[in-house]
Amino acid sequence: MAFLKVVPLEKALETINSFPLEPKVEKVPLGETLGRVLAEDIVSPIDVPPFDRATVDGYAVRAEDTFMASESDPVRLKVIGEVHAGDSLDVKPEKDEAVYISTGAPLPEGTDAVIQFEDVERRGDEILVFKPAYPAMDVMKAGVDIPKGKLLLRKGTRLSFKETALLSAVGILEVPVFRRPRVAVISTGSEVVLPGRELAPGKIYDINGRAVTDAVRELGGEAVFLGVARDDRKSLKTLIEKGLERCDIVILSGGASGGVRDLTNSIVEELGEVKIHGIAIQPGKPTVIGLIDGKPVLGLPGYPTSCLTNFTLLVAPLLRKLIGRESEVRKVRKRLAHKVFSVKGRRQFLPVRIEGDNAVPILKGSGAVTSFVDADGFIEVPENVEILEAGEEVEVTFFG
Amino acid sequence: MAFLKVVPLEKALETINSFPLEPKVEKVPLGETLGRVLAEDIVSPIDVPPFDRATVDGYAVRAEDTFMASESDPVRLKVIGEVHAGDSLDVKPEKDEAVYISTGAPLPEGTDAVIQFEDVERRGDEILVFKPAYPAMDVMKAGVDIPKGKLLLRKGTRLSFKETALLSAVGILEVPVFRRPRVAVISTGSEVVLPGRELAPGKIYDINGRAVTDAVRELGGEAVFLGVARDDRKSLKTLIEKGLERCDIVILSGGASGGVRDLTNSIVEELGEVKIHGIAIQPGKPTVIGLIDGKPVLGLPGYPTSCLTNFTLLVAPLLRKLIGRESEVRKVRKRLAHKVFSVKGRRQFLPVRIEGDNAVPILKGSGAVTSFVDADGFIEVPENVEILEAGEEVEVTFFG
Repeated sequence: MAFLKVVPLEKALETINSFPLEPKVEKVPLGETLGRVLAEDIVSPIDVPPFDRATVDGYAVRAEDTFMASESDPVRLKVIGEVHAGDSLDVKPEKDEAVYISTGAPLPEGTDAVIQFEDVERRGDEILVFKPAYPAMDVMKAGVDIPKGKLLLRKGTRLSFKETALLSAVGILEVPVFRRPRVAVISTGSEVVLPGRELAPGKIYDINGRAVTDAVRELGGEAVFLGVARDDRKSLKTLIEKGLERCDIVILSGGASGGVRDLTNSIVEELGEVKIHGIAIQPGKPTVIGLIDGKPVLGLPGYPTSCLTNFTLLVAPLLRKLIGRESEVRKVRKRLAHKVFSVKGRRQFLPVRIEGDNAVPILKGSGAVTSFVDADGFIEVPENVEILEAGEEVEVTFFG
Repeated sequence: MAFLKVVPLEKALETINSFPLEPKVEKVPLGETLGRVLAEDIVSPIDVPPFDRATVDGYAVRAEDTFMASESDPVRLKVIGEVHAGDSLDVKPEKDEAVYISTGAPLPEGTDAVIQFEDVERRGDEILVFKPAYPAMDVMKAGVDIPKGKLLLRKGTRLSFKETALLSAVGILEVPVFRRPRVAVISTGSEVVLPGRELAPGKIYDINGRAVTDAVRELGGEAVFLGVARDDRKSLKTLIEKGLERCDIVILSGGASGGVRDLTNSIVEELGEVKIHGIAIQPGKPTVIGLIDGKPVLGLPGYPTSCLTNFTLLVAPLLRKLIGRESEVRKVRKRLAHKVFSVKGRRQFLPVRIEGDNAVPILKGSGAVTSFVDADGFIEVPENVEILEAGEEVEVTFFG
């Protein structure tokens, strides 16, 4: 194994960013696109409404036929048919003719206005019109809501029910969205067992496997949780190979012991290349970053808060890039609720909880499960800083 | 059909709230609970960690054996074995004995402290200890993170990756969550076709079916979109019956014509009971609320913005109740960006977009699709108010 130094975070991010993974586009039926991210700008292929449409029940007329109408001298128009919502057009009124029309129905050719039925008097097959109609009266013109060719939604938009409804309105059935990256998740450690199994002496339940799997899902990726690898070469290699076979990215979270890291390093070295083993941040030193057949393999620290912090720093940006959500802001500026001490020469990330305008540091030690559950995210304490004072402005990065 | 008056919104909400639907609980495997809502308080069934655990690699000792240790007069302890993470305990050191221990491993019975291996000198099967260890040094005590019996998560919590990880940490495999209500969604109107179909003359693409289906999903319900019913009794009745068979709630959205509403009324009357047909709000007058075999059937207005407004006012609270998310706040106070006029005697809901601290009214007319796409929610203009001035404080209710 080549000798690799502990590198700065920026170098690790650059390395991950240089991996040969690019966002991929797939077409998905509209009914399955809720929450997905558009991979292309969407331009309306039609006018909405597609035709001039009555907005009331009444009579479609040629406005100019009614210009002379008055209370004392009503205009008479001959009703030659009717048209309802959903009908195609089969009547073509000539001069001084009208058509009964219901709300939502298309205006017959030649007509340009609708008079509410309460405003006319019907006499047999004629109506009396008592005041002039103006062109487009009670008509919604074709394309007035959405003209054909209008840019409707931008690439990168995450589709909520409002956007899926808009795509439906213009009749788009197949929607180009970013493919969800498939991520294999592996927990490691002979002491780790999955919920549902008996907790034999010396064993603990898995935390990181569940946290990483569901964090990937919340980000919009597809996660496949492969379970727990014991601290032996065969068990770990089998799961890494399974992950590479089924997924685009493999994420491991270390057991508490350093042995797993060495194993991961050596297996990645055998199957591909270790790019980085160790980042100059706390927590995060034991992080392994490798590439096997063009697929990133990332080994995260074992302590849950450390694991989540490194997931947020290293994995989440990669997933966001692949999923087209790179521009999403996951940071907020707050005031530190109380003084914290750091160690000079260490670039440290501290979990904090947000309370109103404050960031409250959570100082439970990285081994505590609950420190990441209680936290909303973390703040950075730079290498050259030993003390952050209460009230100081800090930038909180949300987990995930 | 009994004569039913237009009723105030409060009466409609009361009616819906009195329907015989209660939240139901189901047990779901932990791996499928992301985004679900807890139906019970969760108490930890175990201590986390479940045993006293080493936090460093080193030697597990009985602290009292080392109390006399000093640089000049080190204490000698005999190393009688080793214990690694995941091992069950099979060594029991006596006085003046130690055990090699790796991070995460359980402390052997009788030992109460761990000395880092860098701090001792190993000589054959002995170690030299140069300073006293104190009880619990470099040990994470059983239950210190989560004691058995601790209330972990409250009923009503929506599970993010942090909560699923916490449930995993305490070994809970089957999680009690609220069952997702099943909602059938039907669009109506002979003029309405689904995306993917050809847009024949006089036809428009469905909007409400997609909007309601995906809004139900965003709320956490299971939506089944049954498609479009034509404006005829048979088509509409068939779909309503299908919805009742498969779902807990049936939601229709009207076509533009009044005829559909009368049909819905009459079908609900035949199969069950119409409770309300018409609410004294704008938009929303054409709303139908019925009950068939204990299942609500709700007919919403046809214009998309009206449909979404009434969905938000009437359906969303019911779904939130069933899903255990009743307490969720979906309102925010903002300042009106510019003056709006209303009609005296009408209780009106106006779509608004939020821009910073402002609520910007969207005045496109209820027929425009894009008015709800551009809007974040709506404000209420009470019956006795004709003008809301720019800068006035308003309460914005988010759609959905």
